[in-house]
Amino acid sequence: MSEHGYVEDDFARDTDYIEDRITADGRDGWPVEADRYRLVVSRACPWANRAIIVRRLLGLEDVLGMGVCGPTHDERSWTFDLDLDGRDPVLGIERLQDAFLARFPDYPKGITVPAIVDVPTGKVVTNDFPQMTLDLSLEWTAHHRDGAPSLYPEALREEIDEVNAWVYTDVNNGVYRCGFAGRQASYERAYDRLFGALDRLEERLTDRRYLVGDTITEADVRLFTTLVRFDPVYHGHFKANRNKLVEMPALWGYARDLFQTRGFGDTVDFEHIKRHYYVVHSDINPTRIVPKGPDLAGWLTPHGREALGGRPFGDGTPPPAPRKDERVPSEHRAA
Amino acid sequence: MSEHGYVEDDFARDTDYIEDRITADGRDGWPVEADRYRLVVSRACPWANRAIIVRRLLGLEDVLGMGVCGPTHDERSWTFDLDLDGRDPVLGIERLQDAFLARFPDYPKGITVPAIVDVPTGKVVTNDFPQMTLDLSLEWTAHHRDGAPSLYPEALREEIDEVNAWVYTDVNNGVYRCGFAGRQASYERAYDRLFGALDRLEERLTDRRYLVGDTITEADVRLFTTLVRFDPVYHGHFKANRNKLVEMPALWGYARDLFQTRGFGDTVDFEHIKRHYYVVHSDINPTRIVPKGPDLAGWLTPHGREALGGRPFGDGTPPPAPRKDERVPSEHRAA
Repeated sequence: MSEHGYVEDDFARDTDYIEDRITADGRDGWPVEADRYRLVVSRACPWANRAIIVRRLLGLEDVLGMGVCGPTHDERSWTFDLDLDGRDPVLGIERLQDAFLARFPDYPKGITVPAIVDVPTGKVVTNDFPQMTLDLSLEWTAHHRDGAPSLYPEALREEIDEVNAWVYTDVNNGVYRCGFAGRQASYERAYDRLFGALDRLEERLTDRRYLVGDTITEADVRLFTTLVRFDPVYHGHFKANRNKLVEMPALWGYARDLFQTRGFGDTVDFEHIKRHYYVVHSDINPTRIVPKGPDLAGWLTPHGREALGGRPFGDGTPPPAPRKDERVPSEHRAA
Repeated sequence: MSEHGYVEDDFARDTDYIEDRITADGRDGWPVEADRYRLVVSRACPWANRAIIVRRLLGLEDVLGMGVCGPTHDERSWTFDLDLDGRDPVLGIERLQDAFLARFPDYPKGITVPAIVDVPTGKVVTNDFPQMTLDLSLEWTAHHRDGAPSLYPEALREEIDEVNAWVYTDVNNGVYRCGFAGRQASYERAYDRLFGALDRLEERLTDRRYLVGDTITEADVRLFTTLVRFDPVYHGHFKANRNKLVEMPALWGYARDLFQTRGFGDTVDFEHIKRHYYVVHSDINPTRIVPKGPDLAGWLTPHGREALGGRPFGDGTPPPAPRKDERVPSEHRAA
């Protein structure tokens, strides 16, 4: 997402996205096709992180390229400052904004990641992040790797949707409502809802390994990207501080279990995460000093969750290690 | 102390205090005398909290009155806004500043707590906090309660001084150097020194109950007032976030042991502590929103430190419960 820090009475996320879909039948004019589109992300962003994980789990790396923006940005939003010459090597642009303006010259909304860009025209097709990962699962099947897991299986879809709905409101977006509240009362409401939901998740995950069913699903991907940012940024920067994630045994075990699963932890860049939040939100961190903590060594400790059973990839298999050109630098990973 | 948030490259505490001493022999013109002086504090302030604790442990409540300022203040510093009509009932002033100006009409330094005021003249005698608590121990002996502990015993004085010196630099003041650093490099230096010192303390306190000797001393008082503020304010607000206090088993046990000892925990007002830091330092918390966390219930859990031996009050006894008029409101205490 864009993420300038909107400090408002009650933080309201702008949820008006470009809703075109890339589908197998191409009914919106954007058929699934190898080597045609480019996924643009920031590793800092939890919403983009979902797409990075799903693309990895499904093995879409070789048909859907990925451009990675730097963790910080100015009021004109995300830039390709990590690339040589500051340009995405495939799209040839310096700012993600250019792809939005190519599509709509007067684009009035936030320039957000994740976005999928049509490479031949340079136009953004969609930045509708909740639909994007579902479409990678359901529309891109012709290009899935052998052994790709079923992240949104029909039989569990209703339950996944139900979990996703309250996890989004109270947790994924709930942390932002804590951090960007402009008044004490709004903040306290958001805090109560957030920790109420985390208590509910703690209980749910005490005797089951995954959120829905006994395999990894879209619901786990969506919760994971918030949990992995909890202690590094949400706890302090967003004042989501009843307790750290490490103080909730089931959730912390669950988060480590996923982190240590291929396709999850290997997508996480803690350095980008911390720099993004603490530098971009200067309205709540005017010094822009980035905390040195927390100690991340715990992410690699045994979690013991295998004892709960579960089949992480169902009838499928874990993805291979990340491509060399997509590896998170070792100094940005958990120690 | 005064504590406007000085965000500087390297935070440097102004340590130029009014150094007059109240002594048994009255050599500075200020002899120890019952009902003559008034200790002015804020329960928010760690330096003032030292004096509140020592006064309690030594049983000086009935000879040395105490005025309590509210937790927040403006640029003219501490006020008696908790009192009826906003005036200290003994000194009759609205602002602690008035007592400093009564002493020095052009007083150029910070208006800080703790301060001891001469009631008949309304003049501040001293705000030299490190000397103040030692003088309560050594000069006010004629008024100590029966069973008052020896907090600065001659035989241990050298070791206490040595511990106090590095605990002050790296921990007591070290948290401020983290929080008020104006540059990333200064902050990181302060963070490394702070956690280096906490690691050293963690090791020291693993097999000994108290910092020096086998009884409570001045060294424990000074460390305690920083530790009790660590998770509520220093961890998030000052970015002292390698880990929380609750993640360091010996230090957390040690802090709870003291907290549960009469004269320590009963002086702590968590509400005042949080409001002070988060509201007064608007340069690092512009929204002035006060975090609802952390959960404080852990402070009252068993610590098991009795197994290490030690005699909390040596040959003395614990103080009685706080006077009714000096009790911290129950809703400001650990749950």
